[in-house]
Amino acid sequence: MAPEPALRFANTDAEVPQSDIGRLTIHCADQPGIVAAVAGFLAEHRANIVELGQFSTDSEAGEFFQRTVFHREGLAQVLAELDRDFAEQVGKRFDMTYTFTSAATPKRVTIMVSKYDHCLLELLWRNKRGDLDMNITQVISNHPDLEADVASFGIPFIHIPISKATKAEAEAQQLELLQGKADLVVMARYMQILSAEFLNSVGCPVINIHHSFLPAFAGAGPYLKAKERGVKLIGATAHYATANLDEGPIIEQDVVRVSHRESVAELERRGAEVERSVLARAVQWHCEDRVMTFGNSTTIL
Amino acid sequence: MAPEPALRFANTDAEVPQSDIGRLTIHCADQPGIVAAVAGFLAEHRANIVELGQFSTDSEAGEFFQRTVFHREGLAQVLAELDRDFAEQVGKRFDMTYTFTSAATPKRVTIMVSKYDHCLLELLWRNKRGDLDMNITQVISNHPDLEADVASFGIPFIHIPISKATKAEAEAQQLELLQGKADLVVMARYMQILSAEFLNSVGCPVINIHHSFLPAFAGAGPYLKAKERGVKLIGATAHYATANLDEGPIIEQDVVRVSHRESVAELERRGAEVERSVLARAVQWHCEDRVMTFGNSTTIL
Amino acid sequence: MAPEPALRFANTDAEVPQSDIGRLTIHCADQPGIVAAVAGFLAEHRANIVELGQFSTDSEAGEFFQRTVFHREGLAQVLAELDRDFAEQVGKRFDMTYTFTSAATPKRVTIMVSKYDHCLLELLWRNKRGDLDMNITQVISNHPDLEADVASFGIPFIHIPISKATKAEAEAQQLELLQGKADLVVMARYMQILSAEFLNSVGCPVINIHHSFLPAFAGAGPYLKAKERGVKLIGATAHYATANLDEGPIIEQDVVRVSHRESVAELERRGAEVERSVLARAVQWHCEDRVMTFGNSTTIL
Amino acid sequence: MAPEPALRFANTDAEVPQSDIGRLTIHCADQPGIVAAVAGFLAEHRANIVELGQFSTDSEAGEFFQRTVFHREGLAQVLAELDRDFAEQVGKRFDMTYTFTSAATPKRVTIMVSKYDHCLLELLWRNKRGDLDMNITQVISNHPDLEADVASFGIPFIHIPISKATKAEAEAQQLELLQGKADLVVMARYMQILSAEFLNSVGCPVINIHHSFLPAFAGAGPYLKAKERGVKLIGATAHYATANLDEGPIIEQDVVRVSHRESVAELERRGAEVERSVLARAVQWHCEDRVMTFGNSTTIL
Repeated sequence: MAPEPALRFANTDAEVPQSDIGRLTIHCADQPGIVAAVAGFLAEHRANIVELGQFSTDSEAGEFFQRTVFHREGLAQVLAELDRDFAEQVGKRFDMTYTFTSAATPKRVTIMVSKYDHCLLELLWRNKRGDLDMNITQVISNHPDLEADVASFGIPFIHIPISKATKAEAEAQQLELLQGKADLVVMARYMQILSAEFLNSVGCPVINIHHSFLPAFAGAGPYLKAKERGVKLIGATAHYATANLDEGPIIEQDVVRVSHRESVAELERRGAEVERSVLARAVQWHCEDRVMTFGNSTTIL
Repeated sequence: MAPEPALRFANTDAEVPQSDIGRLTIHCADQPGIVAAVAGFLAEHRANIVELGQFSTDSEAGEFFQRTVFHREGLAQVLAELDRDFAEQVGKRFDMTYTFTSAATPKRVTIMVSKYDHCLLELLWRNKRGDLDMNITQVISNHPDLEADVASFGIPFIHIPISKATKAEAEAQQLELLQGKADLVVMARYMQILSAEFLNSVGCPVINIHHSFLPAFAGAGPYLKAKERGVKLIGATAHYATANLDEGPIIEQDVVRVSHRESVAELERRGAEVERSVLARAVQWHCEDRVMTFGNSTTIL
Repeated sequence: MAPEPALRFANTDAEVPQSDIGRLTIHCADQPGIVAAVAGFLAEHRANIVELGQFSTDSEAGEFFQRTVFHREGLAQVLAELDRDFAEQVGKRFDMTYTFTSAATPKRVTIMVSKYDHCLLELLWRNKRGDLDMNITQVISNHPDLEADVASFGIPFIHIPISKATKAEAEAQQLELLQGKADLVVMARYMQILSAEFLNSVGCPVINIHHSFLPAFAGAGPYLKAKERGVKLIGATAHYATANLDEGPIIEQDVVRVSHRESVAELERRGAEVERSVLARAVQWHCEDRVMTFGNSTTIL
Repeated sequence: MAPEPALRFANTDAEVPQSDIGRLTIHCADQPGIVAAVAGFLAEHRANIVELGQFSTDSEAGEFFQRTVFHREGLAQVLAELDRDFAEQVGKRFDMTYTFTSAATPKRVTIMVSKYDHCLLELLWRNKRGDLDMNITQVISNHPDLEADVASFGIPFIHIPISKATKAEAEAQQLELLQGKADLVVMARYMQILSAEFLNSVGCPVINIHHSFLPAFAGAGPYLKAKERGVKLIGATAHYATANLDEGPIIEQDVVRVSHRESVAELERRGAEVERSVLARAVQWHCEDRVMTFGNSTTIL
């Protein structure tokens, strides 16, 4: 049996089993005493805080977000109990939204893709070498081109062609495939617009990579638009997909310097590098429960 | 007498007098033999090429741009003759637009500013310490606030208040002040929109700094818009001012990473740092005859 | 009377008086219950946590660091009491090193400088425009060159020449000047090596800016060494000065891209830009009590 | 038959056949008239200059480097003739070192690797998708681990184990394998030191990727050393291998920001990303004849 993956501590690379590592994310209206209540609860339940990120939009009347990573021996046996006790002892008092997760249970991820391979391969490869902890359950594509690439990673590839006429039917098929297979959907340069109906029914977050520095060059053909406008940097944006195309909450962005010399084709090549690293970071943060959304913004903790 | 500033060569810091350094910029339709003709002309006139930048949008039917820095002993005495000979021997043949300039004649620059000091001070200070070779003839402002700052650099400060009612008159005053005082106008966070009439009459290029990564967040209040959209990078754009606000040819852009934590005020502070370095680079490149515009894009050589 | 500076909250720019904002930094051996104890203490004392940064080198046997910013009405009246109570109720129990500070009491800073003005001016200017909260009490220099620059900011400039023969005497003079005038000393390109005796006696931290990406090119002449080695990036390092030259704990570093084209003089010009932003960030973080040292490393919270 | 790859021009993506694109690189002592002589030669031979990069270390007594990309119809038929004519008409006169190459003849590259896959896969993948034009003839490894990965790209994988006792023999085997198979050798995290004998006999350049920002942290274990020194940026360096370990001419470097939070293992993960992009850029520039070495530095044109 393969050794269990483990959390490595910063300066020492000391290891504890992943199954003893839990994460608690909370969101509520800011008010005095939240940190104390949460930390007190964890201490009483013999859970030691390993990492704590916290953010308040306003100490008087703002929104409060916290992500806590903790170490608790035998966590698997007590996780349900922790959840129940927390609701009673802390959650209700502060009217919190919260989730407990175990670091030993990676998120189930379905990747959707068309013909471009760069974002897909980056995710598959980082996952394979252990840098990006997720459980890739399947890859769904509207083209057959990348079947062999996916097969070489031992991951199911499902080809569902889409035309204008068949779009509703194809989305229904996709939704069926997602049943029990996705805590997250990643559009890794999937070149179809998901309908509002699909997004309403999918039941889990959807991350998209847009090949520009949003809100610049939203919509189709961003590299051509960038060339025509003569910008000196091009970028990529990973965001949660919403019914408003390219307007969902931004998770991560990055840019790379270009000049007058690059053709549109060369901009696409350079942009592809940014796209894959930006998408990989966004997916990683999401899988580590670091991303919390409020309104149309994200808080990364 | 102070020693004359000099061009430093790359690996050696060897020096030759600035007055013997010339620059030739050319623009024409691409066609075979241009580089040979220009280089041949310079060699025959005992001018040694020190730096050569060249760009063609398409070798078959494109636009050709070239910037050549050359060393010619006694340049001051022969500059007019070079110009005349070049027209006859090269310029006409290729139907070129071209200019010869001497590195010993810095451009005359008028800076326009409102209340923010950061871009203005960066330009004044880099100029004073010898990093940005230009002749700042005056600073014109619609507010009196920065008078003392400018005075400490020994540069004339002219206050021309502007209201809706007086705008036409104020611009007329500005144009008069610019007579003989500007090869370049720099809007260093000048918070008024220059009228199309002003831009038509000014007779020299105008560089503006916009406090966002254009085309994202054009118009007023870009940092507030950036906060509302939840972007993860903010930027600044230096561009030539045209009658279409924030749509002129881009010279330089840069960005800095931000997160959910920064308030609009903090975004402004961080953005100010990017604004001043982006504007300083754009002005420097312009003053070194590196920026060539075609259509709505720039070529930086 | 000028309005009191205030803490701006992230999304809202809402303001509370600086005098009601406190900071608590702690360091101790990691052990269960620290966060709960500290948060509980603050809640009981009606102090609301505004910002919390925390780091543990190892949850089992590591070092624990925490920085907490809190809002407490009427803080000035209760700060001494908080400090005393904390010692009894929390500090002793966990064997902590800790400090309480008020955001309304900026650190007293003495800047030491030689002839280069860029780092000095950056600090003076950021301080003047309200971006870098510190109380610059004086500038000490071994050269008279920058006296007028400093005078224009209304800050005392003291010239203490140094030669090999007079170094001990000069350092004694400097130490006397520092009495009651420095919670921090900043070497803003001060081109003398401070003796071990000076560093032992100074009684406050000393931040130095080194003009390379340490540990590359330690010692004198880093830009010449960088040119000779043909590196493609040059950098700057802000670190706490220790008796081992250029080997103290690093606070901040940054780099800028260069090529074969830059002369040593041009590397110096580009490096100067990095130096001033790196030093400004390091001084700001120190003044905000964000930097905690352990061994030869820093933790920035 | 697959369409021939083509050079895309900057603004237009217009295409001409790769087989009509040539590159000329020259190096000689700087002296007046070089650019004119080269450009004149090309014009007379009906070759149109598409791209020209030029660099002189000193216009009086420096070294001169030039890279010229040109378009000549029917280049394949006249390349040998061009070479011969150039020697007579230009090369001898200026005592030049020069090479003519055709863009249609990609360099033959042998990759050497040990167990880490990230640099190898980046090169294989960029090559496969057409972003990095080279002819990867084989992969040689001292470990069998990556055989399947390489096989999936249809490239021969040769396993030559190395121990202290067998090193000389193994290197002899490697040299034999390289016969006719390498215009370039790339060490893509090959964890053996090549002997001076090997480097003397190999007969082509060798590019190595070092996992630090050289000259910081030369030698083994750079990420551990970086952690111990507490640096705030980690980097990677691609350089030509010489008998002096980690001291050969640097081609490209880059860095990524880190903090106190990253363990050595996490530094390795982040560093791996920088390593692969730095190595890919260096190999690409070399394959495009952009890198010229002089002394221990490179000029990238």
